[in-house]
Amino acid sequence: MQTDDYQMRLTNFLERARLLFPNRIITSREANGDIVKKTYQEEYQRISQLASVLKAFGIKKREAVASFAWNTHRHYELYFAAPCMGVTIHTINLRMSMEDIIYSVEKVEDKLFFIEEDLIPQFEPVAEVLNNTLSNIKGYVILSDKKNIKDLAPTTLSPLYLYEDIIANENTDFDFNEDFDENTIASVFFTGGTTGRPKGVAVTHRHMFLRSLAMTSVEQYSIGQRDTIIHVVPMFHVNGWYFPQTGTLVGANQVYPGPGFTPEIILDLIAQEKVTISGGVPTIWMDCLNHIKAGKKKHDIGSLTRVICGGSALPRNAMEEYNQLGVNFVHAYGSSESPFISSSYLRPELDDLPVDEQWKYKASVGMPFVGTELKVLHDDESEVKWDGKDMGQIVARSPWTITSYYKESAERNAGSFKNGWYYSGDIATVDKYGYINIVDRLKDLIKSGGEWISSIDLENVCTAHPDVIEACAIAAKHDRWGERPVLLVIPDENKKESINEEDILHFLSTRVPKWWLPDKIIITSSIDRTGVGKMDKKKIRNKYKDVLIF
Amino acid sequence: MQTDDYQMRLTNFLERARLLFPNRIITSREANGDIVKKTYQEEYQRISQLASVLKAFGIKKREAVASFAWNTHRHYELYFAAPCMGVTIHTINLRMSMEDIIYSVEKVEDKLFFIEEDLIPQFEPVAEVLNNTLSNIKGYVILSDKKNIKDLAPTTLSPLYLYEDIIANENTDFDFNEDFDENTIASVFFTGGTTGRPKGVAVTHRHMFLRSLAMTSVEQYSIGQRDTIIHVVPMFHVNGWYFPQTGTLVGANQVYPGPGFTPEIILDLIAQEKVTISGGVPTIWMDCLNHIKAGKKKHDIGSLTRVICGGSALPRNAMEEYNQLGVNFVHAYGSSESPFISSSYLRPELDDLPVDEQWKYKASVGMPFVGTELKVLHDDESEVKWDGKDMGQIVARSPWTITSYYKESAERNAGSFKNGWYYSGDIATVDKYGYINIVDRLKDLIKSGGEWISSIDLENVCTAHPDVIEACAIAAKHDRWGERPVLLVIPDENKKESINEEDILHFLSTRVPKWWLPDKIIITSSIDRTGVGKMDKKKIRNKYKDVLIF
Repeated sequence: MQTDDYQMRLTNFLERARLLFPNRIITSREANGDIVKKTYQEEYQRISQLASVLKAFGIKKREAVASFAWNTHRHYELYFAAPCMGVTIHTINLRMSMEDIIYSVEKVEDKLFFIEEDLIPQFEPVAEVLNNTLSNIKGYVILSDKKNIKDLAPTTLSPLYLYEDIIANENTDFDFNEDFDENTIASVFFTGGTTGRPKGVAVTHRHMFLRSLAMTSVEQYSIGQRDTIIHVVPMFHVNGWYFPQTGTLVGANQVYPGPGFTPEIILDLIAQEKVTISGGVPTIWMDCLNHIKAGKKKHDIGSLTRVICGGSALPRNAMEEYNQLGVNFVHAYGSSESPFISSSYLRPELDDLPVDEQWKYKASVGMPFVGTELKVLHDDESEVKWDGKDMGQIVARSPWTITSYYKESAERNAGSFKNGWYYSGDIATVDKYGYINIVDRLKDLIKSGGEWISSIDLENVCTAHPDVIEACAIAAKHDRWGERPVLLVIPDENKKESINEEDILHFLSTRVPKWWLPDKIIITSSIDRTGVGKMDKKKIRNKYKDVLIF
Repeated sequence: MQTDDYQMRLTNFLERARLLFPNRIITSREANGDIVKKTYQEEYQRISQLASVLKAFGIKKREAVASFAWNTHRHYELYFAAPCMGVTIHTINLRMSMEDIIYSVEKVEDKLFFIEEDLIPQFEPVAEVLNNTLSNIKGYVILSDKKNIKDLAPTTLSPLYLYEDIIANENTDFDFNEDFDENTIASVFFTGGTTGRPKGVAVTHRHMFLRSLAMTSVEQYSIGQRDTIIHVVPMFHVNGWYFPQTGTLVGANQVYPGPGFTPEIILDLIAQEKVTISGGVPTIWMDCLNHIKAGKKKHDIGSLTRVICGGSALPRNAMEEYNQLGVNFVHAYGSSESPFISSSYLRPELDDLPVDEQWKYKASVGMPFVGTELKVLHDDESEVKWDGKDMGQIVARSPWTITSYYKESAERNAGSFKNGWYYSGDIATVDKYGYINIVDRLKDLIKSGGEWISSIDLENVCTAHPDVIEACAIAAKHDRWGERPVLLVIPDENKKESINEEDILHFLSTRVPKWWLPDKIIITSSIDRTGVGKMDKKKIRNKYKDVLIF
């Protein structure tokens, strides 16, 4: 690489917003419900002040600072101040266990911590350990709208600083002198694995620049200067799906819903700020839909044109109901390692299909994104036929797919990466148009008598039962068949007395092949979940290990 | 760079089109007017065959082959076959002088030449020289729909091959094994300088990948799979403005109008193929508009939604007339060295302005593109005020701006590049919204008594005279004032007897400051132009050097 080759850095976005969109608005909700509005011009000044603070603390290029925070304008400021001076931001997942948080911080060796005020109690025991194991911690900065440190409740965190207090008198025009290259790590976050401690995903400036540019593509999310984005995706999760960075690149208005937001808060903000686009997992959008339907208050969400829904599928009837409200839901598929693999936009070839047939495609995880290369591979690495039936593992590579975990051994990388390709562990089919249907997680497939049973399909059929809220299929060891399915079922609150195993089996018997019928059905009131809300099959298998042997 | 970091190569686009858009259509017009249609699937096979041919000729990675060709599907095939195997395509500008062509080929050391059949006579004298100066020329391949070499007219080109003949029996599934990195040169072309021989612009795979991705951005041209592109921009000029590559990335239908296309051919193809987008210089679109207005035949261009117009400005009334036909013209500004700097899309802030005021912005060259960093600098490198008045030189950098010329000395690079920034030589103002107005070429500004006179402004005022078709203002040396303006004027064909210097002076006198009034006005019937159709002020100054001294 020539030394004067253009280096793709986040400073490009920051400076663009300052120059071209100084008056566009970042709206943020404080913990007390107050709404604060800052222009990009003002945000540039605050980001400059924060960068000055980091410099004053002696934080050096390629060192890291950590955030333990909600979606606020202060977190946004850290999203830019740190990377734009060559410092890494480590976004700690609030939902990780204390042990995993400590593990990840020790790995990154964070020098300074930005802690949301209401999360102080949760972080105190973590800090207590870290103060013994890390020698270079410079302090804990509390994210709050308070301006005087004396207004904080007593805490064991020390040295303690207050964000608004320490940035207040700093220089509002920091010199981001860009003396680092595009392969410098901009952010790192950790993702829960199926075994052992979480693994780190380090994202370079190059990766972030390219991913954000791709988000503006008409083939993807068409995010532009006419948009107003609400940040529903947690900023501690996969860089907030790159909405904060993309919004800055194009000068979109942005809305940060703050600590502990509810469906009501989201819906109010959408109406007040005329939000046009959001992302998010299905749960929050189901909650919003139920809130709208409960009808206690009228919410005008007419400005919202599209929602990118990831993590799992939004039920079709919910997609249809949103559609009637003018909101287009598209499914996006990806992972922490490769955040954007596919999306369920309709191809023009499908425009003339009956609506009912179009839903088949909208309900899939869509076709590969521009820039992303995808293959679906059999165990022997041969490619599946694109016939909607042949199954294999999704593997992908792209400018925004990592090719190894952060500071991990070859052993912990094995299985996930090979020759620059990411092996997702997701089993899928692809149809002739390139639409992908996820069949199962590689580790969750149930192999009975040499035949695969899809746990996802079994769950979907079961949840179609009118009295069932959720179902979870897992494999039990079986002497004769190798594995056999066991089904956990959460019934409707009002039916939990009346529903029984017989009902479910009877319901399933006409809907799945006979050999798919579970050997055991367990009626339960809760299912273990991971930090990001997915069913935690590892934990579930462990919990039921005594009943899972036949 | 880690070795397994994702490498952005054109193969990504080629494979994507094959996998996801095998049935989309590339339409091409042959020299005899026949229309041929190939799917991306078929094109992939032909590109494979062509790659096999290049391999059989012994062309190695990082060596170059040259094209001397029109906009056809064969040229498109070469656009992919060569780069995707790590070979450089050198697109020779058909309008360069013989001496410059020889100079450029000797610089690149092209090994194989792809010559359009009708251009054989033009290339024969070039080849005659090259056969003496270059030792490794493997031959001349004629681009034609003919299948038998005996059907070609006699030629001195030797060894001679026929394209359709040599690819016919080759392997249709070439192994593009990608054993080269993203900084490998994909294409090279030459751009006329103000002094001396043309300079080479080498474009890497990375550059092409990123520029094409940016073309799909909703902030730029929103090129997507629902588009049908007609290639009006010559493919020998700045990679056809990246339309062929972008079209392939998104699987758009593409239309190549072939050798010697006319406005009638373009308009017919737009109607027949339901073209949605094009690029091009104003001249061709003015010709098309006049053709439509002449009304000999009805042309349905209702499918065309947008045209990217570069090189110079389309007159406002033409933009308005197209607008009434449903076509949105946007001005794009750039150069060979930095092909995409700005574009005249309207910002949402301007949506509510009266139409008349909006035209001020549409007539500008617009605001900087996503990804492009722009500064406008005074001579002392301080930045101009964004007030629409303060003037300075446009400098830019981006992932698709080169940072030096191909194989050039420091001396020949000086003035154009500094610290990774490209110095355009264009003088401009920027208004508070970031809209750029080009005032002049640095070298064409006229400095009289210490004050700048804009040659472009003077020309624009003069062409507003009802009897004037075109005007060209140049600087004459002047003992007292340093420089004084001289104006060349091309009058309307019917007025050339009646118009005189007095008329023009009188017309100008009420419209420009007194000290702008030209010291001499020359009525003439033609003005020298560069290979891409711009006024060649270097040549003009030279031609009139004897009359340009006061």
